[in-house]
Amino acid sequence: MFARNGIDKTSIRAVAAGAAVDPALVHHYFGTKQQLFAAAVHIPIDPMQVLGPLRETPIQEIGYRLPSLLLPLWDSEAGKGFIAELRSALAGSDVSLFRLFLQEVIAVEVGSRVDNPRGTGAIRVQFVASQLVGVVMARYILELDPFKSLPVEQIAATIAPNLQHYLTGDLPL
Amino acid sequence: MFARNGIDKTSIRAVAAGAAVDPALVHHYFGTKQQLFAAAVHIPIDPMQVLGPLRETPIQEIGYRLPSLLLPLWDSEAGKGFIAELRSALAGSDVSLFRLFLQEVIAVEVGSRVDNPRGTGAIRVQFVASQLVGVVMARYILELDPFKSLPVEQIAATIAPNLQHYLTGDLPL
Repeated sequence: MFARNGIDKTSIRAVAAGAAVDPALVHHYFGTKQQLFAAAVHIPIDPMQVLGPLRETPIQEIGYRLPSLLLPLWDSEAGKGFIAELRSALAGSDVSLFRLFLQEVIAVEVGSRVDNPRGTGAIRVQFVASQLVGVVMARYILELDPFKSLPVEQIAATIAPNLQHYLTGDLPL
Repeated sequence: MFARNGIDKTSIRAVAAGAAVDPALVHHYFGTKQQLFAAAVHIPIDPMQVLGPLRETPIQEIGYRLPSLLLPLWDSEAGKGFIAELRSALAGSDVSLFRLFLQEVIAVEVGSRVDNPRGTGAIRVQFVASQLVGVVMARYILELDPFKSLPVEQIAATIAPNLQHYLTGDLPL
């Protein structure tokens, strides 16, 4: 349902109806709609672990904060499950849930705050996504040497100014 | 043989011997060793189309030149074959030839020219690779909207200063 209708237009009530159970049961086992979505994408991490701190971060610092939140997560045990899931999604041609996560969750959370000039927020966020997805590819899937062994702090510090440039810099948009 | 021994340590003579044919036949059908490697990775593009112009490009401009060479190729008919091949390599867990291409061909061609301070060339090039692979993912595989429809010139111009920063900027290395 998330893949077909998007996150906004999918309600816990509808998911529960589809599964022929009480909505309270879905809430009980999965929590919020965002946590249910995370479970559907097999992200073994509550998105609010990342999105919560980002909400508190001034937009001039998001480019620096984002990789320092994400890289330690990806390097963790829980992150391994996420990487495996991404890889299998790529193999099976079903990338719709990942696309949705990037387009709806991240775009809504961050894109709306960097939409300057108006209409550029989604593009800014997708350039950030391209660099972050590229780090995942280089480090965990292609396993480039020495990239795969660099300390997370070094990768975060190296890409941060570029992410910030995408978010608030003067782009040819 | 390329995947097992690397490009440097693989000779056309050895490939020919493995196939029980005359080396001249391999030369005749595949050209140079780099062209043979490109054929093995199913890159339907002569690597020299990109690497040739890069050799002529001053290092202060490579970050700008590289995406303007690569993006039109990826968007072309020949590029579609390359993207399909990358995707199937990701699915089949056999990314060794792509890793080799990034680590040996690009690192040798470009990394040696940006190895300043000494020992940082490979890392600089791999950060560039991470951004370029991320563009491939966002545009052709995840097909993020609007990223997938942006003009190639816009993507090239947006990532160029960041690529240049990785190549010649002051990084926390």
